Amino acid sequence: MSYTLGQLAANVHGIVKGDENLIIEKLGTLEKATEQELSFLANPKYQNHLSTTSAGAVLVKTEELAQLVDNAIIVPNPYLAFAQLSHLFVPATQCWTGIHSSAVVSSNALLGQDVTIGPNAVIDDGTIIADGCIVGAGCVIGRGVRVGQNTRLYPNVTLYHDVVIGESCIIHSGTVIGADGFGFAPDQGRWEKIDQLGSVVIGNHVEIGANTTIDRGAIENTLIGDGVIIDNQVQIAHNVIIGDNTAVAGCVGIAGSAKIGAFCTISGGVGLAGHITIVDHVHITAMTMVTKSILEAGSYSSGMGMEPTAKWRRSAARFRRIDSMAKQISNLEQQIKKLSDKG
Amino acid sequence: MSYTLGQLAANVHGIVKGDENLIIEKLGTLEKATEQELSFLANPKYQNHLSTTSAGAVLVKTEELAQLVDNAIIVPNPYLAFAQLSHLFVPATQCWTGIHSSAVVSSNALLGQDVTIGPNAVIDDGTIIADGCIVGAGCVIGRGVRVGQNTRLYPNVTLYHDVVIGESCIIHSGTVIGADGFGFAPDQGRWEKIDQLGSVVIGNHVEIGANTTIDRGAIENTLIGDGVIIDNQVQIAHNVIIGDNTAVAGCVGIAGSAKIGAFCTISGGVGLAGHITIVDHVHITAMTMVTKSILEAGSYSSGMGMEPTAKWRRSAARFRRIDSMAKQISNLEQQIKKLSDKG
Amino acid sequence: MSYTLGQLAANVHGIVKGDENLIIEKLGTLEKATEQELSFLANPKYQNHLSTTSAGAVLVKTEELAQLVDNAIIVPNPYLAFAQLSHLFVPATQCWTGIHSSAVVSSNALLGQDVTIGPNAVIDDGTIIADGCIVGAGCVIGRGVRVGQNTRLYPNVTLYHDVVIGESCIIHSGTVIGADGFGFAPDQGRWEKIDQLGSVVIGNHVEIGANTTIDRGAIENTLIGDGVIIDNQVQIAHNVIIGDNTAVAGCVGIAGSAKIGAFCTISGGVGLAGHITIVDHVHITAMTMVTKSILEAGSYSSGMGMEPTAKWRRSAARFRRIDSMAKQISNLEQQIKKLSDKG
Repeated sequence: MSYTLGQLAANVHGIVKGDENLIIEKLGTLEKATEQELSFLANPKYQNHLSTTSAGAVLVKTEELAQLVDNAIIVPNPYLAFAQLSHLFVPATQCWTGIHSSAVVSSNALLGQDVTIGPNAVIDDGTIIADGCIVGAGCVIGRGVRVGQNTRLYPNVTLYHDVVIGESCIIHSGTVIGADGFGFAPDQGRWEKIDQLGSVVIGNHVEIGANTTIDRGAIENTLIGDGVIIDNQVQIAHNVIIGDNTAVAGCVGIAGSAKIGAFCTISGGVGLAGHITIVDHVHITAMTMVTKSILEAGSYSSGMGMEPTAKWRRSAARFRRIDSMAKQISNLEQQIKKLSDKG
Repeated sequence: MSYTLGQLAANVHGIVKGDENLIIEKLGTLEKATEQELSFLANPKYQNHLSTTSAGAVLVKTEELAQLVDNAIIVPNPYLAFAQLSHLFVPATQCWTGIHSSAVVSSNALLGQDVTIGPNAVIDDGTIIADGCIVGAGCVIGRGVRVGQNTRLYPNVTLYHDVVIGESCIIHSGTVIGADGFGFAPDQGRWEKIDQLGSVVIGNHVEIGANTTIDRGAIENTLIGDGVIIDNQVQIAHNVIIGDNTAVAGCVGIAGSAKIGAFCTISGGVGLAGHITIVDHVHITAMTMVTKSILEAGSYSSGMGMEPTAKWRRSAARFRRIDSMAKQISNLEQQIKKLSDKG
Repeated sequence: MSYTLGQLAANVHGIVKGDENLIIEKLGTLEKATEQELSFLANPKYQNHLSTTSAGAVLVKTEELAQLVDNAIIVPNPYLAFAQLSHLFVPATQCWTGIHSSAVVSSNALLGQDVTIGPNAVIDDGTIIADGCIVGAGCVIGRGVRVGQNTRLYPNVTLYHDVVIGESCIIHSGTVIGADGFGFAPDQGRWEKIDQLGSVVIGNHVEIGANTTIDRGAIENTLIGDGVIIDNQVQIAHNVIIGDNTAVAGCVGIAGSAKIGAFCTISGGVGLAGHITIVDHVHITAMTMVTKSILEAGSYSSGMGMEPTAKWRRSAARFRRIDSMAKQISNLEQQIKKLSDKG
């Protein structure tokens, strides 16, 4: 896998400055790239790295920056161009093509053209796997599942019955889609299971990380929009709806029937209560506890900053008495008012 | 799968109001149900939905409410009846019965009557799988495991050696039961592993969600009582004990040797410290940090409400100085006392 | 598996007090051990248990403590000795040895001596599995992975292509190593995937719990040092670096490019922001939100103590007005100053 600088520039509609025949074999960071590597300057504040980098060439935003290195590709958005070029450097990640002889594929599953089913994968009845899909080793695809074209499931993914996955999705290992939502009716201290009769429907161009769980709906479906990106170990409960192009970072938990808008960014470790609504274009910072709806776009947060443990203990102890503190203050205000009036 | 309204009513000992021959094909919500669907009114505050619903029939609590729709089933607890009826509408979720030819079953494993072992499942030596169990594709059942009758393991569950699961349990995909507890003795900066010689014993009628982990005990067993329900991505450390009928929502983490009572409800994202005791009938709200025992039934919480990020930054900064604030207040109180005395 | 007290003492270089021919069949706790069991007193504050224990023998620190029981092994560090002896009592946990006939092993994978590959495991091209490794049932080992000698993968572990695991490591079920980091370039509201071209390199003597995820690096590798111990359901993002012998408890989330030193202990549920640095010998208490670098060894915390929900609601409401409270205090201080000046 190697390309000339000119080939790479053409790929991202960039302008070469320097040697367009330079051979690039890898992508690299400004700090560590070698002469065979292409790097990028995404943030102008690291501009001084350009004078010290050993990279063979650098993706930059302007002619001026290009002059600081021997070879460059000038593009309006170097970080985006870097992302686009990254696709050219992916190594072969598995050796199998076609339907592996050890896979168990139901005789009435419908497999499209150029489908790869890895070793020991299991495909149940009535399943439709469209053209160009890759199903990794050990995946289990339940009855009646539909997977859109060019979607890739990495090994050991589990899709329960009737789940629908769109086109060009990527789902990483260990992820479970369509397990029962956590629905139970209390019955004199015991829990009566509510069978979860909905499913999960996932749009196109969705990426889902490793060991994430997305539960099937109780009656209606759980819905994930187009272009949504979801990181590892995210828990999405039954009947959640996530709008297009929203990003959900690692370890987020979203409780049942929460409705999240489009173009939102939910940082790592956030928890969202059930049955709330988050409008479009909301950003939530890491580990925030969201207990009510957010009806206005913007950035939201909760939680306390870290302190040395000894100081934190005092702060936490004080906090338990914050209500008394407020009363003391109001008391003081009255006393002072009296004193002033007297004075 | 369709039933007459009369059949469904009989099933939950309800009284039909309207057409008992009405054919019901599905369950639905009041908002979206069609004429072939049965819905339910669990919360009287949504009573006005009864006048607008298109549902063929509705589960309601009283004769009065029944009069607001054409067809109804009157039951004391409509939500419970809905849960009970949900069992009648579960579709076939897999096509296999019996022992699949691709499964690897040790010659000395004991399998009961009507056991299903899915494709590529692996059953180790000395295992006992009782009557009516379903072991999903790709499950791995370790040496000496015992599984009680009518328990279902969804695909890709892992049970380590000697784990005991009760009757009529449901365990969802990706869940790992019996991995080693996190036990290590410090040895001059290094960690000496403590082999985990206990196991995990799970009662009857327990449901465990997807990608949950329950570790084996260090010496004694980790114990999960009867009727406990556990959601996805819950982490239960070694030697935890959970009492009967307790509910544990998604993303909860329970540290080693914590003892949780019966009939508790632990909301999503809660963290419980090790070696603490929680008595029966305790409710803990979402994302609470529980660092000490709870010895009285009731509801407990911690954490801060969400704010717009800019305001939150100010609050968080103030919080770091809450100890000084308290001192300022006490200072003011003394000064005022002096002034008043003088006055 | 049974040993004489003398054999066990020799194993940990301890001194027997009492009957060195006593047969020990198990390890047990002071509270529950029987006459065939060896227990230990790690913490002198439980010394009174020595008079009531039924344990056949006890690991103790001093001659004096040994005199309180019939049989003892005296060692400088009883807890460490208990850990060391635990290795002698591990039962057989699986029945397979060698390469199971159902495993799918690429013809050009290199397997060392005494390697066990469990049923339905899948080993891709160019993989090197060194001497003495055990690969559990259902594991999937990607193209070009290298695993050092005597490492054990429990069932259903997934290693993506090119991941490197050191010697004598233990990786528990459901863990996924080398999935893509969560890297995307924003492009007019959409997300352009950045293919993750780095890998994951894990040192020697590392233990990783169940359902943990460690992502591959974007360009450089994600790095886990020697002797690191990681619990269940930990999320480690791309390009994280963790120093030797650091311990990471359950449910911790570590964001991209965070650099954690050696000999740190990160308690359960902690969240660490991306691109921060934590120096050596830092302890972080449970559920702390770490949003900036920690440049001095010591213990750090955040979060609020738990309260009864009703009281917590008042505290949380007050907290939202902490900024006003601070202003009220400063106001009062000025007023009092004026009054005092007047007085």
